[in-house]
Amino acid sequence: MTCDFSYHVPTQIYFGKESFHHLGAELKKYGQNVLLLYGSERLKTLPLYQTICEQTSDLNLFELGGVEPNPRHSTVNKAATLCKEKHIDVLLAVGGGSVIDCAKLTSPAAFYAGNCWDLVTGKAPMERFLPIVTIPTISGTGTDMDAFGIVSNTETLDKVPFFHPNLYPTASFCDPSQTFTVSAFQTACGAIDAFSHYLEVYFMRPNLDAHLRCMEGFMKSILHCLPIVLAKPNDYEGRASIMWASSWALSGFTFGPTKGTPFMCHWIEDEVSAKYDITHGLGLAIILPHYLDFCLNAKSAPLYAELGVNVLGLSPTSTPVEMGKKCIEALRHLFFTTCGLPQRLRDCGVAGTDKFPEMARIACRNGTMHGFVDLTQEDVISILTASF
Amino acid sequence: MTCDFSYHVPTQIYFGKESFHHLGAELKKYGQNVLLLYGSERLKTLPLYQTICEQTSDLNLFELGGVEPNPRHSTVNKAATLCKEKHIDVLLAVGGGSVIDCAKLTSPAAFYAGNCWDLVTGKAPMERFLPIVTIPTISGTGTDMDAFGIVSNTETLDKVPFFHPNLYPTASFCDPSQTFTVSAFQTACGAIDAFSHYLEVYFMRPNLDAHLRCMEGFMKSILHCLPIVLAKPNDYEGRASIMWASSWALSGFTFGPTKGTPFMCHWIEDEVSAKYDITHGLGLAIILPHYLDFCLNAKSAPLYAELGVNVLGLSPTSTPVEMGKKCIEALRHLFFTTCGLPQRLRDCGVAGTDKFPEMARIACRNGTMHGFVDLTQEDVISILTASF
Repeated sequence: MTCDFSYHVPTQIYFGKESFHHLGAELKKYGQNVLLLYGSERLKTLPLYQTICEQTSDLNLFELGGVEPNPRHSTVNKAATLCKEKHIDVLLAVGGGSVIDCAKLTSPAAFYAGNCWDLVTGKAPMERFLPIVTIPTISGTGTDMDAFGIVSNTETLDKVPFFHPNLYPTASFCDPSQTFTVSAFQTACGAIDAFSHYLEVYFMRPNLDAHLRCMEGFMKSILHCLPIVLAKPNDYEGRASIMWASSWALSGFTFGPTKGTPFMCHWIEDEVSAKYDITHGLGLAIILPHYLDFCLNAKSAPLYAELGVNVLGLSPTSTPVEMGKKCIEALRHLFFTTCGLPQRLRDCGVAGTDKFPEMARIACRNGTMHGFVDLTQEDVISILTASF
Repeated sequence: MTCDFSYHVPTQIYFGKESFHHLGAELKKYGQNVLLLYGSERLKTLPLYQTICEQTSDLNLFELGGVEPNPRHSTVNKAATLCKEKHIDVLLAVGGGSVIDCAKLTSPAAFYAGNCWDLVTGKAPMERFLPIVTIPTISGTGTDMDAFGIVSNTETLDKVPFFHPNLYPTASFCDPSQTFTVSAFQTACGAIDAFSHYLEVYFMRPNLDAHLRCMEGFMKSILHCLPIVLAKPNDYEGRASIMWASSWALSGFTFGPTKGTPFMCHWIEDEVSAKYDITHGLGLAIILPHYLDFCLNAKSAPLYAELGVNVLGLSPTSTPVEMGKKCIEALRHLFFTTCGLPQRLRDCGVAGTDKFPEMARIACRNGTMHGFVDLTQEDVISILTASF
């Protein structure tokens, strides 16, 4: 039973600074007991927290803070236990991708007696689900409108993605003004994460021209708005565009009929943040130009040329390979000059290259990555070493 | 209770030539009794009909054919009566926008004792709904993935749009190969309808850069693929792009925070097809260039210039007003030279201009249309007269 693709995003999006008026009514649909998941205690000092308390004043609000970046399976287990004890009806995840991913795994874990890691590794199936409502406070991951998550096991140093069609949030409240206070560093990392979600699929060439042109539109918008919000963090429209473009990146809207591994650069970076706990978007910013450089050849160059003209606004006057180099140069300029991100893994806590072979093996799932250019484990080691 | 916008498209899309494998299972979710709505009896000669029969072999399939272009409220009343008599559980609409719109109004009419026209005019509320499954066999309207419909009353010569959030089809089976046999004329009319859905919203400037860039992508893809499928009707990828771009046009994906009347040209055309029963997309093709010409001025010209560069591939060397003229010229060339459509209303059954004042009054809802350029009833008469 196949078709070119199926598309189904049941998430209700409330977008904008007035969206929270709908929060209480949305939560109430699912029951009385709400578990608020969040990261830093700083949330308690924000007007957003007051709004949440007001909107849930006639509900029972339970809380679990301290969800860490690259969320841990042990935290999910703690949240699942709380759900069982308190008879939680709905999860409210407030924060970045990590908090929302934590809620996503908590959703089925709340109905599972064992360790949530079993649900990620496939040892046990995900069967029942708590509804998930999200309030993203940073743009980038798109996890507020997709059915993916990623979780880390600090015992085994594994970082494993998971997916289930029932993991789409039932509702997400996307208020761009919540991201005004996100630091320039995190803003850049988030936008680069979203950009990379599009770019990696774009280079896999889904068959539909309509997909390609839309992905170009989203990428163009992210690259246009990122310098704007870095210069003016309170630019509502710029923040809104980056937020909306981020939400759509992994929803399935642009995937279409791709073959192979659509997220090669992501898979490489996941191993870096699993081993060294560095910010995902920073890892991508460092690795992406080297990955693009490694994959640039006479056969792949036309893809780069199209990206250059349609997204980066380059003049189509050079050879495709030259265009490819100009694309990489433009991205480097954005990431390292405009955004001021560090350029090398060694500057971000990666002590040496000794773990690269193992990281490459896991990124390649013990084989070869089949993408728009196939990458062997040796190739991945080369990309990581160039990024070091 | 407002927010910038809310977005929620619950429709499950099965896209592609193999998608019908899922049809039986999808229908069965809702019950045993299926009402197949369709237009021409030609359906019975197609492999698609065989597929439908196979997929519903263990269900009770009832049929109502003869749904006309610009579907009539009397046909909806007939379908609603059948639903009540046969205890229909789910509607299966197979055809163009007219058949699907007929199903959309039948959905609440099946639970209403009176004339379905009451539900359109607001005399009675839409309260309960039959689930709708669609198989579009022509691209353009986007009604397979939105919650809008339009219905004609041949007694009063009214053609009235309707909307309810529960009118999203629960599933749509979008197989581009079903559109291979659509005539060049209907293919062009459908694509121009979809293009106009984007263009009219684009000129209203929703606030988000991300929306604008995506709409540009979809418009670019439609204009790129239309000549391809006219030259080669079996071009699967071209048909697929036009189909997918059409589906998204009215889903809410690109609406964002617009103000005023987003569909001025559509509202004008709706009066033409209400009075003269001409193909909607043809009416748009004739009126759109005159509408754009009328609205082009020093203030609006930058919008045209942006469209010219980002969608029509024009070089940004002229003044904005000159760019605007070039945009209109490029669209005229596509509609009338490439697609070979008739250029004037008088060539399409519009006998005279005497009804234009009344049509303008209804299009303007007795007032003025507030759009990217405001249009008085006199202005609309001018546009209609230029199109005549």
